[in-house]
Amino acid sequence: MFRGDCIMARFSTFAQTLQADDIAEILALTQKPEVISFAGGLPAPELFPIEEMKKVDEAIYTEQGRQAVQYGPTQGYDLLREQLAARMKDKFFVDCTPDNIVITTGSQQALFILAQILLDKGDTVLMESPTYMGAIMAFDPSGPRYTTVSTDENGIVVEELEKVLASDDSIRMIYVIPEFQNPTGITWPVERRKAFMDVINKYDVVVLEDNPYGEIRYGIDKLPSLKSMDTQGKVVFMGSFSKTFMPGFRLGWIVAPDDVVDKFVKVKQSVDIGTSTFGQRQAAYFCKMYDMEAHIKQITDLYAKRRDLMCDSMEKYFPQEVKFNRPQGGLFTWVTLPEGIDAKALMRKAIAKNVAYVPGVIFYPNEGEVNHFRLNYSNMTEDRIVEGVKRLGELLHEELDK
Amino acid sequence: MFRGDCIMARFSTFAQTLQADDIAEILALTQKPEVISFAGGLPAPELFPIEEMKKVDEAIYTEQGRQAVQYGPTQGYDLLREQLAARMKDKFFVDCTPDNIVITTGSQQALFILAQILLDKGDTVLMESPTYMGAIMAFDPSGPRYTTVSTDENGIVVEELEKVLASDDSIRMIYVIPEFQNPTGITWPVERRKAFMDVINKYDVVVLEDNPYGEIRYGIDKLPSLKSMDTQGKVVFMGSFSKTFMPGFRLGWIVAPDDVVDKFVKVKQSVDIGTSTFGQRQAAYFCKMYDMEAHIKQITDLYAKRRDLMCDSMEKYFPQEVKFNRPQGGLFTWVTLPEGIDAKALMRKAIAKNVAYVPGVIFYPNEGEVNHFRLNYSNMTEDRIVEGVKRLGELLHEELDK
Repeated sequence: MFRGDCIMARFSTFAQTLQADDIAEILALTQKPEVISFAGGLPAPELFPIEEMKKVDEAIYTEQGRQAVQYGPTQGYDLLREQLAARMKDKFFVDCTPDNIVITTGSQQALFILAQILLDKGDTVLMESPTYMGAIMAFDPSGPRYTTVSTDENGIVVEELEKVLASDDSIRMIYVIPEFQNPTGITWPVERRKAFMDVINKYDVVVLEDNPYGEIRYGIDKLPSLKSMDTQGKVVFMGSFSKTFMPGFRLGWIVAPDDVVDKFVKVKQSVDIGTSTFGQRQAAYFCKMYDMEAHIKQITDLYAKRRDLMCDSMEKYFPQEVKFNRPQGGLFTWVTLPEGIDAKALMRKAIAKNVAYVPGVIFYPNEGEVNHFRLNYSNMTEDRIVEGVKRLGELLHEELDK
Repeated sequence: MFRGDCIMARFSTFAQTLQADDIAEILALTQKPEVISFAGGLPAPELFPIEEMKKVDEAIYTEQGRQAVQYGPTQGYDLLREQLAARMKDKFFVDCTPDNIVITTGSQQALFILAQILLDKGDTVLMESPTYMGAIMAFDPSGPRYTTVSTDENGIVVEELEKVLASDDSIRMIYVIPEFQNPTGITWPVERRKAFMDVINKYDVVVLEDNPYGEIRYGIDKLPSLKSMDTQGKVVFMGSFSKTFMPGFRLGWIVAPDDVVDKFVKVKQSVDIGTSTFGQRQAAYFCKMYDMEAHIKQITDLYAKRRDLMCDSMEKYFPQEVKFNRPQGGLFTWVTLPEGIDAKALMRKAIAKNVAYVPGVIFYPNEGEVNHFRLNYSNMTEDRIVEGVKRLGELLHEELDK
């Protein structure tokens, strides 16, 4: 086989835009065990139900045998779609049937395929700013432009949304994370959701409601999803098993109107034929054999404790000018430095102190504010949370007390 | 939730081309148990190693625990890539390292992502004609044009290939299946492979060598893959576990030069973040704990028997004017009717006799010959093979003896 530099000179125009990423290179340094990294977004592995999964897999092979490992329908495993239809009602107030549901290879795949079926090159996607960077990556291959609307402490600013929609008829898709947003941790109250739906109902747009964290809530009441308020078939809901169950199985789902399901399934067939038939049964059988709600309660109890510990430690160790939020769910808190401090520039100093975060600038689809960073608290033992925040506090004092 | 007709009027230009497919609708009729369907391409489920998999999963949970179900690296599980590097040497004469390998969510995903990174809208893909229809589906979202080169009983016609390449500088990618081709079952002899490489080395093109069937060979010697003859880093090899192991886990791989691996991994991250970390371990641990070669021998012994039975039955029951091949590996045989007989038009009559095939016309990227059909023999018990071929023979006699 040929080795060394490759002469494969020509990539697609899109692929040529994929360049080495300096932040990714810095984050690669955080893999060392001595670094306390708040940079990831991983769930707590100590709660993965490994012993239960041994029994789950055994039951799948015994009860389903060969069918569990053969090709399956592209739309997904019947039992799992039935369970999810019930779950959508119970957890998100959405009244749908299994026919409205497609199982995806993680909700990342949902983002990617929805962009493929909804966007032409040059169409505009409207997003919160900041927002999930993985969504931008999933939409990029379709070649859209991005326009943004600010968020306040209650989510997307609806007056600004209306102005932007009224002034730009190239907007075809709106991407939002209304619950425990990544990266800010913000949740939209029900009034904001209603106001949002009132606005978007006036325009010819599709809303992607990304909800991977909605079941990771710390004691606050369930809120109706945007999809539950959707009277015109304009909202596609995206859910995920990565935070409530285990991410390694790569399982997510969409809830969508019939015509979107039809196009989505056709494209999914050409993308991966279908999501692992065995993996789908692992989730379905776990839900059938064990108490998923009790499992989620374990997760939320642990994460609430870690959130408190992180926020309390920030109060103790961070300079007073540094602000942060205490999220009511999800995996992240968002830290705001005084204006003029660049969180990306500070990263190498943080890593020198063996602590890491993600600089906020990467979460902005267009130009962004530089004085934020995101901290993850789900994937870290309590002692390391305290020690890591303490190290960050030292760094911030050094910078701000200069 | 909104029900009924959807008002989501606007899909992407590409999605609008995805229309209802009359052949798919007819094939949906073949799901009834009374229909003997040779239309699929499924492996024989009776050889799936279900009891072994119980032990495999147990070992993964016990030895690897949480790591086996957490997010993993996008490029794939180390041990599996190491095993595959050795396998590539042993089975396909390719000298590569684990760094050249990316694990994919089935080889369908490899086709899709390679098109994304290699093709701009309007670029030309050169293909055998007929060829795997799933490749066309995977390439379509990138908006290419297709040009074709004829095949004879030894594969792609190299003289024609050279003429087409010399006359069309928009050709950027060549897609071929040199072993036990789907749908024709043809395998290129080594001389043809060498002549092919001599031609493509003169042009600035990338070759996708799709090889899902190469390990399903009936007693004939292994042949060097195109990738093993690649001195310029122009060939990307695609492999699959769907035929040798189990398709439900959705596991495939590519072997590619460094720069392709780099772009591929970046796009895969935005498509599904990574292939199931647990699924990858299911394949790796099966290879570690059991004798994969003995398992593949069981498969090839059974399929060779079924191929013989199908071909012998066709000799017995089909009219003499009907031709077919006796493939030396893979899952399919290709039947050629006398010119003027339309295999698609004949399909409804076949289904009325409770027997089904795939009409050949769907395997042509552009205009195609109508007097072929494809038969699968891997996924059918022996008595049903004989009975199905007998029914087809009756139909063909009725049509040809008119």
